[in-house]
Amino acid sequence: MTLSLAQARAIIDAALAKARADGAQPLAVVVLDAGAHPVAFAREDGASLFRFDIAKAKASGALGMGADTRVLAARAASNPVFFQSIAAATGQMAFSPGGVLIHDAAGMLIGAVGISGDTGECDEACAIAGIAAAGLFHGDRK
Amino acid sequence: MTLSLAQARAIIDAALAKARADGAQPLAVVVLDAGAHPVAFAREDGASLFRFDIAKAKASGALGMGADTRVLAARAASNPVFFQSIAAATGQMAFSPGGVLIHDAAGMLIGAVGISGDTGECDEACAIAGIAAAGLFHGDRK
Amino acid sequence: MTLSLAQARAIIDAALAKARADGAQPLAVVVLDAGAHPVAFAREDGASLFRFDIAKAKASGALGMGADTRVLAARAASNPVFFQSIAAATGQMAFSPGGVLIHDAAGMLIGAVGISGDTGECDEACAIAGIAAAGLFHGDRK
Amino acid sequence: MTLSLAQARAIIDAALAKARADGAQPLAVVVLDAGAHPVAFAREDGASLFRFDIAKAKASGALGMGADTRVLAARAASNPVFFQSIAAATGQMAFSPGGVLIHDAAGMLIGAVGISGDTGECDEACAIAGIAAAGLFHGDRK
Repeated sequence: MTLSLAQARAIIDAALAKARADGAQPLAVVVLDAGAHPVAFAREDGASLFRFDIAKAKASGALGMGADTRVLAARAASNPVFFQSIAAATGQMAFSPGGVLIHDAAGMLIGAVGISGDTGECDEACAIAGIAAAGLFHGDRK
Repeated sequence: MTLSLAQARAIIDAALAKARADGAQPLAVVVLDAGAHPVAFAREDGASLFRFDIAKAKASGALGMGADTRVLAARAASNPVFFQSIAAATGQMAFSPGGVLIHDAAGMLIGAVGISGDTGECDEACAIAGIAAAGLFHGDRK
Repeated sequence: MTLSLAQARAIIDAALAKARADGAQPLAVVVLDAGAHPVAFAREDGASLFRFDIAKAKASGALGMGADTRVLAARAASNPVFFQSIAAATGQMAFSPGGVLIHDAAGMLIGAVGISGDTGECDEACAIAGIAAAGLFHGDRK
Repeated sequence: MTLSLAQARAIIDAALAKARADGAQPLAVVVLDAGAHPVAFAREDGASLFRFDIAKAKASGALGMGADTRVLAARAASNPVFFQSIAAATGQMAFSPGGVLIHDAAGMLIGAVGISGDTGECDEACAIAGIAAAGLFHGDRK
């Protein structure tokens, strides 16, 4: 299955709905396909300028390393020099929760969500809510 | 006025509605704020991988030079070496119609739309339709 | 279908076999997946230093724009400023024959081959031979 | 001696043979020449997207600093700010074992292997096995 624009928008809408219900800070949400290319993006009013770049770096970091950024952030905490060096080498990684892999019902990796704007925990919770609302499955499934 | 996410999405939705009505190739549509930072983006199913980059380079090129890319493309045709040099220097310009400045009712520049996927003329027509549908004004107004 | 390493190597081996049979200059051959990430690469002895970069830019240019670089090169010849600007914006395009899209039997785009080292015509002929030898289909099929 | 494509492929094949025998995670293996330019590369099915970039950054980091990345990672742990600054300055270093210098029988430096996909220890063990299988000598020899 290829991630469709309709699915990507469903993920974004549900993630932002949760953010508003929870009173989160203004968020930016990007959905990338399995090759780490953008499918859809939205930045809420009031979110700061680099939120696109950070959200995208979370999502592409997850895809690039094959794990949610929650997992990568934990690994990075115990091996900071290596993770900082690959962040510099790729220019496409942000190590904080909120980059979440998306799988289809068959377990195939079809993309990733990246969210930035509130705490990593909040960002990630909104990402997971968005994926579930679109009828897809987040990183833990694989 | 600051360009809102709601306005950016209205632009994208109307641009894509026109694209579908006109039978255009699959498009990518990005809306940037006045500082050239992404507010919203959508890439239709079947659009190729670099459509985000090209759409963004159209919109940021328009903002960076203060003119729609239709105008910039014409200037570039008569002065190619200079325009190629600034494309290389910035890495954020694409000289083909489809990068269109957005003004509010007071004539203030509030952002730009960039569209890529079909001919420059088609891309630009969809951008202008999107801006008008959102109750905003395209580059010609200024 | 996802392009496998075995398929990528079969493409490279057959492309290089044709190059040797035809007395081509030393070639570099890269195979990218559908997201433009490298799967396999080989640079023949005597090929110059930037052949990887050029071969990769052909393959990623084809994927990024959704057409073989033979087609893109022809378009670029009639619209050089635009194509040079998007080459600068993406940093991942080389406009000469030798970047060829790969489709599976169902017509799905699964990657691209990029070859550099001889003339564009020779590079492309080797790419097409490689794809065919792997039981896959080149860009013309879609 | 210049590193040949045949030698590079022998290194990759033996490294991957060891990886499969040991049940390693899917790996990416790159071989660079003495000027840090790619000679050959393979990414196993299931390896994540950035494995090429990381493997290449290990190999180019080793060549760039004149030591295997095991040595560089140890130095970086005791002087992180400097090593992070050079990682950022070059964009071509990854400080984890798995980047291994290649010497010929005369002790001349002829290239480097970079492997990414499993632990640094596993990656490095596969690199060393590959170099030995090709009749060449790894970093410790110098």
